[in-house]
Amino acid sequence: MLSRKSFLFNPSLYRFCSFREEYDTFGPIKVKSDRLWGAQTQRSIQNFDICRDTDKMPLPVIKAFGILKKSAAIVNKRYALKPEISDAIAKASDEIIAGKLNDHFPLVVWQTGSGTQSNMNANEVIANRAIQILGGQIGGKLVHPNDHVNMSQSSNDTFPTAMHIATVIQTNEVLIPGLQTLLTSLERKSQEFDKIIKIGRTHTQDATPLTLGQEFSGYAQQVRNSIERVKTSLHQVQYLAQGGTAVGTGINTYVGFAEAIAEQVSKETGYEFKTAPNKFEALASHDALVDFHGSLNAVAVSLMKIANDIRFLGSGPRSGLGELILPENEPGSSIMPGKVNPTQCEALTMVCAQVMGNQVAVTVGGSNGHFELNVFKPVIIHNVLHSVRLLGDASVSFTKNCVDGIQANTKKIEELMNQSLMLVTALNPYIGYEKAAKIAKHAHKHHQTLLEAALELKLLNEEQFKQWVKPDSMIGPQEYKPKK
Amino acid sequence: MLSRKSFLFNPSLYRFCSFREEYDTFGPIKVKSDRLWGAQTQRSIQNFDICRDTDKMPLPVIKAFGILKKSAAIVNKRYALKPEISDAIAKASDEIIAGKLNDHFPLVVWQTGSGTQSNMNANEVIANRAIQILGGQIGGKLVHPNDHVNMSQSSNDTFPTAMHIATVIQTNEVLIPGLQTLLTSLERKSQEFDKIIKIGRTHTQDATPLTLGQEFSGYAQQVRNSIERVKTSLHQVQYLAQGGTAVGTGINTYVGFAEAIAEQVSKETGYEFKTAPNKFEALASHDALVDFHGSLNAVAVSLMKIANDIRFLGSGPRSGLGELILPENEPGSSIMPGKVNPTQCEALTMVCAQVMGNQVAVTVGGSNGHFELNVFKPVIIHNVLHSVRLLGDASVSFTKNCVDGIQANTKKIEELMNQSLMLVTALNPYIGYEKAAKIAKHAHKHHQTLLEAALELKLLNEEQFKQWVKPDSMIGPQEYKPKK
Amino acid sequence: MLSRKSFLFNPSLYRFCSFREEYDTFGPIKVKSDRLWGAQTQRSIQNFDICRDTDKMPLPVIKAFGILKKSAAIVNKRYALKPEISDAIAKASDEIIAGKLNDHFPLVVWQTGSGTQSNMNANEVIANRAIQILGGQIGGKLVHPNDHVNMSQSSNDTFPTAMHIATVIQTNEVLIPGLQTLLTSLERKSQEFDKIIKIGRTHTQDATPLTLGQEFSGYAQQVRNSIERVKTSLHQVQYLAQGGTAVGTGINTYVGFAEAIAEQVSKETGYEFKTAPNKFEALASHDALVDFHGSLNAVAVSLMKIANDIRFLGSGPRSGLGELILPENEPGSSIMPGKVNPTQCEALTMVCAQVMGNQVAVTVGGSNGHFELNVFKPVIIHNVLHSVRLLGDASVSFTKNCVDGIQANTKKIEELMNQSLMLVTALNPYIGYEKAAKIAKHAHKHHQTLLEAALELKLLNEEQFKQWVKPDSMIGPQEYKPKK
Amino acid sequence: MLSRKSFLFNPSLYRFCSFREEYDTFGPIKVKSDRLWGAQTQRSIQNFDICRDTDKMPLPVIKAFGILKKSAAIVNKRYALKPEISDAIAKASDEIIAGKLNDHFPLVVWQTGSGTQSNMNANEVIANRAIQILGGQIGGKLVHPNDHVNMSQSSNDTFPTAMHIATVIQTNEVLIPGLQTLLTSLERKSQEFDKIIKIGRTHTQDATPLTLGQEFSGYAQQVRNSIERVKTSLHQVQYLAQGGTAVGTGINTYVGFAEAIAEQVSKETGYEFKTAPNKFEALASHDALVDFHGSLNAVAVSLMKIANDIRFLGSGPRSGLGELILPENEPGSSIMPGKVNPTQCEALTMVCAQVMGNQVAVTVGGSNGHFELNVFKPVIIHNVLHSVRLLGDASVSFTKNCVDGIQANTKKIEELMNQSLMLVTALNPYIGYEKAAKIAKHAHKHHQTLLEAALELKLLNEEQFKQWVKPDSMIGPQEYKPKK
Repeated sequence: MLSRKSFLFNPSLYRFCSFREEYDTFGPIKVKSDRLWGAQTQRSIQNFDICRDTDKMPLPVIKAFGILKKSAAIVNKRYALKPEISDAIAKASDEIIAGKLNDHFPLVVWQTGSGTQSNMNANEVIANRAIQILGGQIGGKLVHPNDHVNMSQSSNDTFPTAMHIATVIQTNEVLIPGLQTLLTSLERKSQEFDKIIKIGRTHTQDATPLTLGQEFSGYAQQVRNSIERVKTSLHQVQYLAQGGTAVGTGINTYVGFAEAIAEQVSKETGYEFKTAPNKFEALASHDALVDFHGSLNAVAVSLMKIANDIRFLGSGPRSGLGELILPENEPGSSIMPGKVNPTQCEALTMVCAQVMGNQVAVTVGGSNGHFELNVFKPVIIHNVLHSVRLLGDASVSFTKNCVDGIQANTKKIEELMNQSLMLVTALNPYIGYEKAAKIAKHAHKHHQTLLEAALELKLLNEEQFKQWVKPDSMIGPQEYKPKK
Repeated sequence: MLSRKSFLFNPSLYRFCSFREEYDTFGPIKVKSDRLWGAQTQRSIQNFDICRDTDKMPLPVIKAFGILKKSAAIVNKRYALKPEISDAIAKASDEIIAGKLNDHFPLVVWQTGSGTQSNMNANEVIANRAIQILGGQIGGKLVHPNDHVNMSQSSNDTFPTAMHIATVIQTNEVLIPGLQTLLTSLERKSQEFDKIIKIGRTHTQDATPLTLGQEFSGYAQQVRNSIERVKTSLHQVQYLAQGGTAVGTGINTYVGFAEAIAEQVSKETGYEFKTAPNKFEALASHDALVDFHGSLNAVAVSLMKIANDIRFLGSGPRSGLGELILPENEPGSSIMPGKVNPTQCEALTMVCAQVMGNQVAVTVGGSNGHFELNVFKPVIIHNVLHSVRLLGDASVSFTKNCVDGIQANTKKIEELMNQSLMLVTALNPYIGYEKAAKIAKHAHKHHQTLLEAALELKLLNEEQFKQWVKPDSMIGPQEYKPKK
Repeated sequence: MLSRKSFLFNPSLYRFCSFREEYDTFGPIKVKSDRLWGAQTQRSIQNFDICRDTDKMPLPVIKAFGILKKSAAIVNKRYALKPEISDAIAKASDEIIAGKLNDHFPLVVWQTGSGTQSNMNANEVIANRAIQILGGQIGGKLVHPNDHVNMSQSSNDTFPTAMHIATVIQTNEVLIPGLQTLLTSLERKSQEFDKIIKIGRTHTQDATPLTLGQEFSGYAQQVRNSIERVKTSLHQVQYLAQGGTAVGTGINTYVGFAEAIAEQVSKETGYEFKTAPNKFEALASHDALVDFHGSLNAVAVSLMKIANDIRFLGSGPRSGLGELILPENEPGSSIMPGKVNPTQCEALTMVCAQVMGNQVAVTVGGSNGHFELNVFKPVIIHNVLHSVRLLGDASVSFTKNCVDGIQANTKKIEELMNQSLMLVTALNPYIGYEKAAKIAKHAHKHHQTLLEAALELKLLNEEQFKQWVKPDSMIGPQEYKPKK
Repeated sequence: MLSRKSFLFNPSLYRFCSFREEYDTFGPIKVKSDRLWGAQTQRSIQNFDICRDTDKMPLPVIKAFGILKKSAAIVNKRYALKPEISDAIAKASDEIIAGKLNDHFPLVVWQTGSGTQSNMNANEVIANRAIQILGGQIGGKLVHPNDHVNMSQSSNDTFPTAMHIATVIQTNEVLIPGLQTLLTSLERKSQEFDKIIKIGRTHTQDATPLTLGQEFSGYAQQVRNSIERVKTSLHQVQYLAQGGTAVGTGINTYVGFAEAIAEQVSKETGYEFKTAPNKFEALASHDALVDFHGSLNAVAVSLMKIANDIRFLGSGPRSGLGELILPENEPGSSIMPGKVNPTQCEALTMVCAQVMGNQVAVTVGGSNGHFELNVFKPVIIHNVLHSVRLLGDASVSFTKNCVDGIQANTKKIEELMNQSLMLVTALNPYIGYEKAAKIAKHAHKHHQTLLEAALELKLLNEEQFKQWVKPDSMIGPQEYKPKK
């Protein structure tokens, strides 16, 4: 693992680089010349060497900061910010939104719990880039990270605002489309399998029949509900903390700023945002995201059930249930030749396990706020965005590489259905539960068909049996016809 | 622990009892004469000796079965059920609803995963009680548990229906009123503390001021949101599985039964219920309850934050933060005389920890359904109802025994607020962040007041300081007045 | 739910009771005459009305208090406690140990987080009972709950001590024997099924063969490891906090008291206990129990895997995998006649889901201690003891009602094994992975046997096939014979 | 997010690259010329586009594969592998161990649940690199990924073996040293603060005194126990699945191979490994890692408590508890000038929240194995290694940037201690709990010192008070001196 330490932590390499000096209220500090960040970002790099290689602040948060800082610059122009500085900030922010400055955001999730360092990272990069745009000398404070870029703001309201913006964007652009892709495919399969009557299974044991289309309609309903749940829960994430500044009071900002920001962010993103009705709650808690992740957790539960069913229904090829034929995408085994596995189900269910874990991380983080600020912000947004992405990506992968290509093994399905003892259920209304049970038990014990058992027990005749026990009339409720 | 085995498991005591014989499709079995349950209940008692003393099927589920079986009897009268049997079933069910037959429901949560045994427990007790009402001999099948009481039903749709009915009732009657009680009290406190300016704390460190009323308004908003979340999530629990019978198809029931049941249950309970749009989903998954518990989890997160804050703000009496004076309810220590503790905060936060745990139990249960049935139904409803009750009861206890009696320690609050270095923040718009930081750091280092430091550093004069640093103008955004 | 409020909360019934007055430092309070508890217990009843019907402080904790208070009385006799008072306390404690005074412990889990109220409940009941034994007037303080029964103790060290005592006893008397029962049965089955060669399944897909005995040996190993894990983790629970008193310093106790208590408790229980090396840690954290529950969580994971396998291998009777025949214990369905379900697997897996949830409750509780005391003690011990009991009871139920009676369906097993394409794996060393894959794929595509495919592809002859593809030589590694 | 798609998914760029053809049993597929992987790796890239930017298979697993494949080549030379091929494989593996081929391992965690694709990635890269070493043409099969590199192995035993190797290495090289660093620092502080008597706090309320050194000794004990727990739990991870091959039987491997591999891996790594006693368990479950993560979860619980205490004890600078002075590492606020925050505590507690979440992901994954294979391997090892790294890195960061620099604010500590009412506890043995309570309550009510209250209540005289109430004799148990 020696190689995993990044350059920044290998001082022996420093002599090959050129550096400039940046400063903050703690004094001067060296920053690599080709990086736009400033002193506070540099301090964070040095003070938080925790999973540096893998756990960067998620890019959607960086992008959200771009959107927010641009919006703030535009709104601040109406108040105390000079137009040329506002414009330069907006331009620099646009580059962040476009992903062009990603390399200038080196910080990890495991930093200060308010995300102040990532807010300052944004402020510093934008200030320096804006200075460049204005033709100034970076590291100077022609555009000041605090006084200009962060004007009327505090990390305590910008970071939660960026959390919400990022969540709304990613949910709308990754998760919901991913689930929608899956839903469409399941609905199509449900229709395609509409006429295929198969054995039902409850408690993993043989039960009364249903159509394969009905079975898939249940999966489709689960995903339809998932989309609905996510959308409903997302509503509360539309409310932005911006305007609360330091502790929720809005100190050092102006009346109207909060509302104007929400409006401007809506304009920039195309999604509706509103200012939070109570800024104290919006800084001190992340209940909205905790609740939202509760819905992601429910989505994971739904998808795990669906993937498990498909894996078992497709098990075989010769010694499983074998009702479904799953697409063959790659060799499944390094030792067993010709083996093919339901790998998409596996990837999806692993994703679900992760989301269930992320739920607890978000919960623990959300519950540990104190006084005017929750300082588990980075771990919360890291997990929320991770779950959103995982579920969205995995839904698409699962659909494209598995669901779309599922075929029914009609021969096997019919064979299993016809031999089922649970068709006996249809006799309940005619001969009662107890006699019906006698037939089923007799057939089971003596390896007979239900008809053979029924006749041997003299509980009904063949004609009655054939009239009453018809799988295709067992797949829905009957019309009631009063006996005369 | 020797004494914890209940009578039923102590055969040596059996000779003192009288028994009758009940039977089911497995044959005859002895049941104590004074109990109304039948053979299947008795088998469950004998086969599932797991936490018998503590983990009974929750009473709200029993009551919900009363409501459901009564409703089914009423609806079935329109179809194939004889009126006198229907009426007897309805009467017996009324006794269950009234809680009169609780002693006849001995089963534990840890039984079959479909809850079939609890459904049969209801069917058997109602059948026997109906037989008594009709003047028959119990243990006979004048009213048959399957053919009459369970007519048009399966455990697979009744148990999930009872789960939803119980959840809707308990949420409306225990949880929401409990949260409402808390909300009202917090709102009252927020108003009462409206004029008390205090130091804010972010990262547990001194920050800019706010009013104690604002701080409590944040708590109130959290609880207001909690109520909203619970109500929103509960909507999906209004959908009933009834009508799906064995596997979701509705075999052995009639067209119209599903809708009629939902309507009848609405009438019986006074809450709106609808039939589930897809019965396959409604039997095979409990996503709606998983998602609903996600909101209970969010409520727990909110309440933990509030209780923690109150515990810390009330810490002392002499060496804590001491801003709040909490009601003294009981001696706090068996060794430290005169000690009083924030015990209501402790009970509430323990409840929250439990709910966060229950969330995982519900999630694991919800994710492990297979094919046409999820067989983790009892563990899911056990945890959902436990969380509902815990949060509801604890909210009331916390309100009545703590929040209602909270007083502000105005002397301490004022003392802490006035010495705060973070009042310096008000200077940002006038002298910029960096100079303001110099003042604060100087004052901190030299144990000075901000004014002393400001003057010593010659960064502003006393008049300016007094004009700009005014706590009561730091508790909200300013009106923007453009500089001329 | 109206009926669930206990008598104590129904003041309208109070006129029918007789009361005596008890007092504590808060003043006098009425207690029902036939109850032995005192003022502080009574206050807790009134202040903590949370899940009163279901969530009593676990009885093993009460018993542990009996053991501890007796031990303290015996040890205190060597120091400052009068012999006759010591003896009376010991006698009263013996009655608690025997379970005779359970009705005098009315408190719930959701009380003060230190468990002080349950400690005082024990102190008060013992004091009053000791007074009775000494012929005094209860409610007086001839034997004082604090000065005598609690001598040299604080709730802050007694409650954690009782937590550990209860956990050690219950683990040794319920959990380990339960797991041992299961292990013995699995080992017996593993031997019984020693010669039955069956198809293996990886990714739920057909794989190379193994014996059913080998499959069960894996389950046995999981349970063997579980027992080992539990025993190993339990070691750390042997350390007792007793002697730390109020904050860990041991104020108001004597040098030697801590060690003497550990020794006396060992004598009383027959299990080895030692005094904790650092009392500050022992009061302020419950890491030992958190870690111990981590092992219970691992046990739950093991048992869930085993139960799932058995449920799926026993699925059918006609349309599942059908390799195992599970005991039939009760009717499985209220609508499907003759249906039998793997209900023991269901109860066990539900138990496992609960334990996984309890893990999070314990974790959240354990992580939220502050300064000299963790005040989530009751919720932690509630969950630990619940998991211990659940896993112990469920293991016994599962063994007795399921594993013991499992039979192999040898006909089905043989049929499935013989048609398996994965027997082709045996050809790798002879013809290489790629050619072997060709055979398997050809056979799969054309619904042939492996032999047919091999011959058609001319990749080997019949004699070679029969020599190389022998299931009974595929169930272990070969002896290496160097080619000459 | 547009920019986050890697090159591989942007076919429009493909024309600028050169490709070679690789093949597997599914046929040919294009691979970029400068990459050493083969057909199966390429298929995985294309089939699993899930969190591609962030969730790569952890590098410690890649390194472990290097170690394992080298060991297998060495052992196979004793059996059927040609020496020159063995040597080339060993050399190629050495490059993986050294981290030189990391760029050739592009796969993500979310792939097949057996990790087959990562095993094949290793097989393919090693085969191609070995071919280069032997002067052959890559893409050919002079060294075959299955027949040579994977000889005597299956993904089903190699991947779990790599999981265990990686865990043992990372735990020994990252986690344990990290915890040891923290322990040493806490022990040093405990000694440094040995004589500083301070107020204790239980229930966050004032309690009897202890030394600051004692308080830190509790933290040290927690970390000492953590190290012990991790070491103990790690023992079971030393057992390797290697030798089980496809389903645990050891098909296609030789007697002695399993033991030889364990020995060789021990030699390569310097850590002791043994062959698992039951290979069926070792493939089908990951209970050892689940249990091991239970200990990581307990470590997280310990560290969260410590970090929370330090954050609160260091709260201020003027309005908190203020007993500790924490190092000032960076500006804390973008709006509040001069603010400094306990950011290391925040990073550490966020890490703990994540580990608690990872615990659930591991648990869900561990519990969902079926039959002969658990197919949640990648998600399990991803979370285990993440937690190991997080806790190790964060412990070092927290020590270096926080604990090492903590100073006691002795002035504040003394002030708080002296005014404490809980010093009254020392009077219990002399005047009893009830009279002592009267004094404390009187002093509290009338804002008096204890002495003033005691005298006013005439419960003892000044001389007695001064003799009995001495903080420095309240920080340990007394020697018992029998009254004469």
